[in-house]
Amino acid sequence: MSEMAEKARAARRASYGMAKMSTDAKNAALHRIADSIWSRRGEVLEANGRDMAAAAGMLECGVITTAMMKRLALNADKVQEIVDMIRNVAALDDPVGKTLQAVELDEGLKLFKVTSPLGVVAVIFESRPDALTQIASLCMKSGNSVLLKGGTEARNSNRMLYKIIDEACPALPEGWIQIMEDREEVSELLKLDEYVDLIIPRGSNEFVSYIQSNTSIPVLGHADGVCHIYVDEEADVGMAVSVCHDAKVQYPSVCNAVDTILVHEAIADRFLPAMVKRFKESEVEVRGCRRVNEKVTSGVVEAASGDWGKEYLDYIVALKVVDDVEEAVDHINAYGSHHTDAIVTANEETAETFMESVDSASVFWNASTRFADGYRYGLGSEVGISTGKIHARGPTGLDGLTIHKYYLKGGGHVVADYSGVNPKRFMHRPLDEEWKD
Amino acid sequence: MSEMAEKARAARRASYGMAKMSTDAKNAALHRIADSIWSRRGEVLEANGRDMAAAAGMLECGVITTAMMKRLALNADKVQEIVDMIRNVAALDDPVGKTLQAVELDEGLKLFKVTSPLGVVAVIFESRPDALTQIASLCMKSGNSVLLKGGTEARNSNRMLYKIIDEACPALPEGWIQIMEDREEVSELLKLDEYVDLIIPRGSNEFVSYIQSNTSIPVLGHADGVCHIYVDEEADVGMAVSVCHDAKVQYPSVCNAVDTILVHEAIADRFLPAMVKRFKESEVEVRGCRRVNEKVTSGVVEAASGDWGKEYLDYIVALKVVDDVEEAVDHINAYGSHHTDAIVTANEETAETFMESVDSASVFWNASTRFADGYRYGLGSEVGISTGKIHARGPTGLDGLTIHKYYLKGGGHVVADYSGVNPKRFMHRPLDEEWKD
Repeated sequence: MSEMAEKARAARRASYGMAKMSTDAKNAALHRIADSIWSRRGEVLEANGRDMAAAAGMLECGVITTAMMKRLALNADKVQEIVDMIRNVAALDDPVGKTLQAVELDEGLKLFKVTSPLGVVAVIFESRPDALTQIASLCMKSGNSVLLKGGTEARNSNRMLYKIIDEACPALPEGWIQIMEDREEVSELLKLDEYVDLIIPRGSNEFVSYIQSNTSIPVLGHADGVCHIYVDEEADVGMAVSVCHDAKVQYPSVCNAVDTILVHEAIADRFLPAMVKRFKESEVEVRGCRRVNEKVTSGVVEAASGDWGKEYLDYIVALKVVDDVEEAVDHINAYGSHHTDAIVTANEETAETFMESVDSASVFWNASTRFADGYRYGLGSEVGISTGKIHARGPTGLDGLTIHKYYLKGGGHVVADYSGVNPKRFMHRPLDEEWKD
Repeated sequence: MSEMAEKARAARRASYGMAKMSTDAKNAALHRIADSIWSRRGEVLEANGRDMAAAAGMLECGVITTAMMKRLALNADKVQEIVDMIRNVAALDDPVGKTLQAVELDEGLKLFKVTSPLGVVAVIFESRPDALTQIASLCMKSGNSVLLKGGTEARNSNRMLYKIIDEACPALPEGWIQIMEDREEVSELLKLDEYVDLIIPRGSNEFVSYIQSNTSIPVLGHADGVCHIYVDEEADVGMAVSVCHDAKVQYPSVCNAVDTILVHEAIADRFLPAMVKRFKESEVEVRGCRRVNEKVTSGVVEAASGDWGKEYLDYIVALKVVDDVEEAVDHINAYGSHHTDAIVTANEETAETFMESVDSASVFWNASTRFADGYRYGLGSEVGISTGKIHARGPTGLDGLTIHKYYLKGGGHVVADYSGVNPKRFMHRPLDEEWKD
């Protein structure tokens, strides 16, 4: 058995113990980890310094950017933020052990549907050392074992944080946290469906797509975030311009930024000039369909067919005139990525039709697509945003790391009594009881 | 584009309309289908007669069994049962459009988490014509499009039932129901992740495993049902014998029948002779570990290592002596299939330890494993039993065919107001409101 498979098997074994941990024990462990990271911050900063030195070299060769350097860098304030974040996870509700449903099937035969951990979660994440501590904390809180693979640039920082977390909790089931350092380990991980319950890849579209198509292990995440706003004929033009501007300009490099704006023919003459003017002030490149270019003669370049369904992650937006809400819906369902799409209109009925017809995780009425986020949704903490429809959809919090388990308590009940001649009947009486006091 | 891809694409297109159907419209369609099957029962029985004639030939060659012939056969009473089942699905709660959570993120900015259909579900099922009508009804009720592939032996019956269902609902989105008839179509289906959201394969272990390892589309189901019962030292011997006997003998060829019984060393001398005697009366072959064979000198054959973790689906059971509950738990987690496992004991604490430690979809205390079933659990109707931990686990009803969608209603809200200097704060106030009146 390879080293990677050994790690995954150890994580699986540890997961049985993790699943049984009490809320108090999990929270105590989180606080111990926070304390330990703070008291060993010298070691953390030293390790991070080595990553920064290597990164400085890579910056000169143009392999990494200044923005990447900034995300990689730690200092005492950043370590304090990490420690606070871990304590915040300790303060969240325990997602495990909640009785979702209780039913008395028959006299003395009680069924409980109870939330439980998934088991072993593997997360592959970007070069930010705080990502490691966030993921480890969320997996601990949800009673899962975790396999971590961070960006190569953060190798020393990650290794040190992993070491501190592991050493801070000697009483935890051995192997609950594991670190992967090579790409070869990730390739092997994809085959370990026996030991791994879920993979969460964070990173570029290409990377997430690669993971999705190369494993039979379930994957939580999204490759693309192609977001649309449809400006209806009954929209308030000022609101539409403000919402579209925010959705593009407030933070263009993220998945919930808008990419294509569709506008109803009947309002296009009023909306387009104001919108294009506003975008030009913010130095956004505007690409318009033929009809947009007929209506607005300057400041708009001709859109190519490849612009529909394109995620820009940049100060670029596509504009298209449509005949009605149906055309808008059809366009979104055909070109969108089922992430987040919005309508601006004063007509409630049109808004409801749009929201019910668009097949996306989040559908908004008169609000910026940028609100699609676990923190803004009040989930406490976000493990990812899913554009799939299985298990989790949209911004996903701790409950994406859990599932349920059925507990049945009887008094020697047998199925034979409920079949054949004169069978007993099930009563299926709802109970207001927890599975365990 | 191939014919199969066209079918799947049509189903995807229809799914947008299916998702918007009201409860009344869906129930009316189900009743129209039921009426139509009843009034056209002559055509159904004629088509089934052709299947039966072909099956009679295959029976002579030994390709199919009498039991298969029996499952395939329809008559007026069976058609009546089919019609009743469809009307029962109409009577179930609509799983779509339920507001799971409502939160006011800030003044006038309201978020609703609402149940929604998956989209397109493909089901591959055994040679029982009533399976087609059951699956089609459940998919209709949950607002999904459905791709159906039934057993070849039921080809004419399935084709006729499909035709009647399709013709009974001319107002439904075209293409919502599609039938596949060749194995080649199934092979192609596995690649259509763009159009298909979930595959539910029903059938042999080998078949389900094949599907699971050959598609990146999520699969709901179980390959194996290797079930255990652990008889604890504090078990009531009479109860233990009765529960184990029921779990094996009441219906041995199903996934929730027991395969391995583990018995605590301290009670083995009292339990084993009674258990073996009872099994011999029911002509069950008993395979025991070395320690079992030392304690019971007749009626037990020596178990081979391949007996641990084996699903018999027959009148065969394996017996093993263990030292304590930990050994039982370790054995089950190592050899089980995470389907259903039970403990018999009078000690509540031991029962809870066992149930929390065993990593299975259903864990039972003093009850037969045969209770693991959607009907017995009160789910109304079962789409399958899942041994996976993503999306659905254990017996799965209509809610396995749904997911959720986030609806956000604002008044022109933009994210810029919640960042930068003097940002507005989210209030995340729980609401007692439906997303739509």
